[in-house]
Amino acid sequence: MDHERIAVLAHEKFPDRAKTAIGVLRYGDQDVRAVLDRDRAGDRVRDHVPDAADAPIVASFADAHAAADGDLDALYIGISPIGGAFDESWRSDVEAAIEAGCDVVSGLHYFLNEDEGLAALADEHGVDLVDVRKPDDDLTVATGGSGDVDADVVCTVGTDCSVGKMTASLEIVAAARERGIDAAFVPTGQTGIMIAGWGNPIDRVVADFAAGAVEDMLVEAGDDHDLLVVEGQGSIVHPAYSAVTCGILHGSMADGLVLCHAAGREAIHGYESFSLPPIGEYVDLYQGLAAPVSEASVVAGALNTKDVDEDDAAADAVAEFTDAVGAPAADPVRDGADAIVDGIVDAGLGER
Amino acid sequence: MDHERIAVLAHEKFPDRAKTAIGVLRYGDQDVRAVLDRDRAGDRVRDHVPDAADAPIVASFADAHAAADGDLDALYIGISPIGGAFDESWRSDVEAAIEAGCDVVSGLHYFLNEDEGLAALADEHGVDLVDVRKPDDDLTVATGGSGDVDADVVCTVGTDCSVGKMTASLEIVAAARERGIDAAFVPTGQTGIMIAGWGNPIDRVVADFAAGAVEDMLVEAGDDHDLLVVEGQGSIVHPAYSAVTCGILHGSMADGLVLCHAAGREAIHGYESFSLPPIGEYVDLYQGLAAPVSEASVVAGALNTKDVDEDDAAADAVAEFTDAVGAPAADPVRDGADAIVDGIVDAGLGER
Repeated sequence: MDHERIAVLAHEKFPDRAKTAIGVLRYGDQDVRAVLDRDRAGDRVRDHVPDAADAPIVASFADAHAAADGDLDALYIGISPIGGAFDESWRSDVEAAIEAGCDVVSGLHYFLNEDEGLAALADEHGVDLVDVRKPDDDLTVATGGSGDVDADVVCTVGTDCSVGKMTASLEIVAAARERGIDAAFVPTGQTGIMIAGWGNPIDRVVADFAAGAVEDMLVEAGDDHDLLVVEGQGSIVHPAYSAVTCGILHGSMADGLVLCHAAGREAIHGYESFSLPPIGEYVDLYQGLAAPVSEASVVAGALNTKDVDEDDAAADAVAEFTDAVGAPAADPVRDGADAIVDGIVDAGLGER
Repeated sequence: MDHERIAVLAHEKFPDRAKTAIGVLRYGDQDVRAVLDRDRAGDRVRDHVPDAADAPIVASFADAHAAADGDLDALYIGISPIGGAFDESWRSDVEAAIEAGCDVVSGLHYFLNEDEGLAALADEHGVDLVDVRKPDDDLTVATGGSGDVDADVVCTVGTDCSVGKMTASLEIVAAARERGIDAAFVPTGQTGIMIAGWGNPIDRVVADFAAGAVEDMLVEAGDDHDLLVVEGQGSIVHPAYSAVTCGILHGSMADGLVLCHAAGREAIHGYESFSLPPIGEYVDLYQGLAAPVSEASVVAGALNTKDVDEDDAAADAVAEFTDAVGAPAADPVRDGADAIVDGIVDAGLGER
């Protein structure tokens, strides 16, 4: 998956319900030439998202194609309805993209490759339908090979789902590169995979192969970089998703952990009867669980303060979180990830 | 899956390399009318395994059918070669079973239902091919529903793979029933599923659904029993399989844990560079990890002493393990599981 010029489909959902589109605009290496949202056609990305790459918002793939002077490699599906279904109102745009010789990249549960009409059309036009949630068929069990990669490995771990582990990982990589560290992002979920252009969706991998699918990626990327930042998933105390978290933790054989949390979160999102343990207990749990496989300390913290309006209150929350973690912490979006990278470097990781 | 009279295929591997066959003979509710092993035809099960149900050993399905007076419901594949492949030398027996109106039950990686010849033959004869490693298509994420089941839930957890968690679970259920506790076994792996006749193979489930697949089983069985003993898998510190372990731990929302260990084991089996932590550290790790989802203490221990020849040495090992666990412990095979059930009952679990 190596697309230079893309259009991103986000019909009726840009920007607030278009997490993947925003992620690609903010962190992707791809040049986004247009965003499709029929409700906002005529606006520009910057009208809604000041800190992302700018691009025109258009009503259809035909308009995107025109806006890009016909020079597009791919259409990315940048939204995901509840349940991950394919919305039939997108079909004409997807078909137009295929007919224009573009690959189509999707993180939906619904696999484009299993849609007979789209698959036949893609075949006819010689383009790829890329379903990033579909794991490789050749995954297998971990061997412990992550311990042998040359790069230092940092894994983001969370107090819960949706606390900003992907964003923290991407901001850490960007800030590390700023100071000359050869860092790379290792994606483990569909949005991260679409941003990075590679990766295994660990939540969709057979449980026995979860750690192995992480190892696979580290072995692939490990010799090319000095620091790998593995995107964590879920939380080690999540009633539904902890298996994924644990597979990533042990499969990455991390050298350091960055604990991610959302300010104000007190219970597991969507599972409100489960209270979050204190931050210090997370530090002990993650370190204790990692240690028999790889000694890894929590070297920094990332606090998501998007629900805190005032900067002062956010700074107070970060200070309190820093104390609880016992390592440098920051909100990587509000403050930048420099303090987090300090924690990583202070632990002797990433610099050669 | 409800088979009363079965034959078990174990060609060239009975008894030492026929774990599933032995499990079904020892713990299954099914009446095993014959074991197929062409190398030992003419012997009886008791010639080799004194403490299992007896049955003739025969060379072929035709001989099994004759030995059972034609009264068989199913043929179980009781062995699994490395890699879980189907051995072509079994095909004539499987075909003969189908033609005789028997279901065929298999825990192989190779799915009988995807073998076109066998699938067509089964269809023609109106019998089922049951691939127990193939998860249900309708599994989904856990909701936390295991916390609402009426039964008390005990989960066996391990220091490593292959330390006897399935056997301990089955012996605990048998010993609990002996003293009038309405206990049931909740299988999570292919051998357990073949013994019990139901269950989800958690290692084959998509990682996101691992906990949900356990919850599914507890919700199904929870109202019918007072004590559910969930078969654990792997180990929480296993470099490859900890995701499965964690999914079962949190998916079961256990009330108590039974820590299982093999005497003399010092490193992860097959991953010898990873040393096992001290037993006390396992107790802390499992309890600490369980607590945010469900408060569960280690209420007993099960020590597998099969590699200890002398009874005295085995007793010493059990005594030492009991001290380390800080709860009653026994080798459930050598000593019976009474002491383990004492630990469960002393914790207030299983009795109504």
